[in-house]
Amino acid sequence: MTRVYNFSAGPAVLPEPVLERARAEMLDWNGTGMSVMEMSHRGKAFVSIAAQAEQDLRDLLKVPDNYKVLFLQGGASGQFAAVPMNLLRGKKQVDYVNTGSWSKKAISEAKKYADVNVVATSEADNFTHIPAFDSWQCNGEAAYLHYTPNETIGGVEFHWVPETGDVPLVADMSSNILSRPIDVSRYGVIYAGAQKNIGPAGLTLVIVRDDLIGNPMPGLPSILDYKIQADADSMSNTPPTYGWYLAGLVFQWLKELGGLEAMEQINRRKAEKLYTAIDNSAFYHNPVEVSARSLMNVPFTLADAELDGLFLKEAEQAGLTTLKGHRSVGGMRASIYNAMPEAGVDALVEFMVDFEQRKA
Amino acid sequence: MTRVYNFSAGPAVLPEPVLERARAEMLDWNGTGMSVMEMSHRGKAFVSIAAQAEQDLRDLLKVPDNYKVLFLQGGASGQFAAVPMNLLRGKKQVDYVNTGSWSKKAISEAKKYADVNVVATSEADNFTHIPAFDSWQCNGEAAYLHYTPNETIGGVEFHWVPETGDVPLVADMSSNILSRPIDVSRYGVIYAGAQKNIGPAGLTLVIVRDDLIGNPMPGLPSILDYKIQADADSMSNTPPTYGWYLAGLVFQWLKELGGLEAMEQINRRKAEKLYTAIDNSAFYHNPVEVSARSLMNVPFTLADAELDGLFLKEAEQAGLTTLKGHRSVGGMRASIYNAMPEAGVDALVEFMVDFEQRKA
Repeated sequence: MTRVYNFSAGPAVLPEPVLERARAEMLDWNGTGMSVMEMSHRGKAFVSIAAQAEQDLRDLLKVPDNYKVLFLQGGASGQFAAVPMNLLRGKKQVDYVNTGSWSKKAISEAKKYADVNVVATSEADNFTHIPAFDSWQCNGEAAYLHYTPNETIGGVEFHWVPETGDVPLVADMSSNILSRPIDVSRYGVIYAGAQKNIGPAGLTLVIVRDDLIGNPMPGLPSILDYKIQADADSMSNTPPTYGWYLAGLVFQWLKELGGLEAMEQINRRKAEKLYTAIDNSAFYHNPVEVSARSLMNVPFTLADAELDGLFLKEAEQAGLTTLKGHRSVGGMRASIYNAMPEAGVDALVEFMVDFEQRKA
Repeated sequence: MTRVYNFSAGPAVLPEPVLERARAEMLDWNGTGMSVMEMSHRGKAFVSIAAQAEQDLRDLLKVPDNYKVLFLQGGASGQFAAVPMNLLRGKKQVDYVNTGSWSKKAISEAKKYADVNVVATSEADNFTHIPAFDSWQCNGEAAYLHYTPNETIGGVEFHWVPETGDVPLVADMSSNILSRPIDVSRYGVIYAGAQKNIGPAGLTLVIVRDDLIGNPMPGLPSILDYKIQADADSMSNTPPTYGWYLAGLVFQWLKELGGLEAMEQINRRKAEKLYTAIDNSAFYHNPVEVSARSLMNVPFTLADAELDGLFLKEAEQAGLTTLKGHRSVGGMRASIYNAMPEAGVDALVEFMVDFEQRKA
């Protein structure tokens, strides 16, 4: 068996020790004689797995006690509807920041439920920067302000947190959660699909402040109702048990690495290596303003787009896979989430240098 | 490692060959150098896994070409909302049959969206039979008629299909799908949470007739919109890829066993052994009318409820687990889905006979 370095934007690489442990426990978790997949979600074994995962996540993110942590289904796309349906509470207006494809999807879904005020957008510049906060046209009456701290397609990331006063701040952290420490108390709701930095697709994490729970819009499906799920410890219906278990293994792996402070250092080092390689070359180019560059998703183009196909083919042969950029940006994209080993970035940089020397 | 016989009602036992294959492929699927969990859902490898799973399911259930098969998130509970939101299409009235706990949950959620007419109920008899079809008070104007072919808690199952004429028939088949051949053309929508007869929790199967797709209720979250998901081959958002893969392995296992005709024979044999053991004893009792007994979930009580705890403890020691009945029925419940080997039922029957001889 040869493992590749998989730069997929999501679903994405998982830590190898996590996969190894899942493999070892596949037919028998901890002497129970069954797979975690086969356990009743209400049985003692799974309840202990679920509680441990939640506690480890709370430890990692230092989640304050007045926040609930929910393990749901439906992905971030489900939360695009769930956020307005849970948080409007009689209000009609909501604020959204548009910094890329995922912001746009969130906005599009929210428009079904609310009057969406786009307070700032970088679309005119093809999402290559983050609009300066003092240019935002915020609405003091908004039910919340929603933004996307990291955009996987454009490769732009907020390196600061908007200050929205009494308006609850809502963040789709699907692609950068757990990549560094955050101050949860700055947020009303944080949500994230699991398939980038948490675990397998099909699990969705929601961290929501107590006072924002309850009184949802009529017609909200129960599975997306924060109050129903919070009251039932995320088990108002059968949760995605295996994803929850795997997320727990990822949380343990992060703790063993030294937590999010340690992870941030590793992530900064990985990103710096890659951006330096790009910036030191006239052959490779990243279009994003330096202050807004993502530590998680690094898009880059070749000076000669005719070479894209060859680059991808040779990279694949070198065990560097899923590097094709999104069609809306073109070129390449290297997603270097938590689980991408530093050695993977080193191998990519080495390949890029070699390719440039041979082809440029 | 000792595997137990796990009689959980769901999440439930999976076929051991499926778990073994998943274990073998955990870090490297088919030479790709990555786990299925790590694959982009839009990449060639996962698209081939997804397409093969759909084709195998279509083969097993002989799904006609004018039906779409969707692989979604949210469980059957998600469909409790999705069904009315997709199928009302301007109508206000819907028909529901109440044969147990799951029917009641479906009814409760549907009431958010529609005027629910309960056409028949067996609640007065504690859900121990199926109301005769000629007693049903159907409404020719209903947008659809919903029923639950198998109720996991009461252990009652329809062994016939309601004839609803032009009113689309909708079935929550979570707990008996793939347990025997069915005529899909009799249904407008069939849905099922995966965690009993399909795969791990977090995957939801929806089989929907083409003419019922489109024109949903305003406010339907996109992830539950049949048209959006059908148009995107269930990938309008990231699907639960690992569950989809595991479901595919279960479908292959079923085909290798000889398909649903063979599965039905095995299931009938397993259920008959257990019901015969119960009926031949004055110590064990099953309350369900014989014609409505479930082949999947077999509740039974002991003549002396004081012995329940001892029965469960000794069963556990004998490697027979998760036999505690639901609190609303009491006693025991043996769920004997497709993946429960016949040897597991034999072992349970043997234990029951022995326990009775020693304790009755």
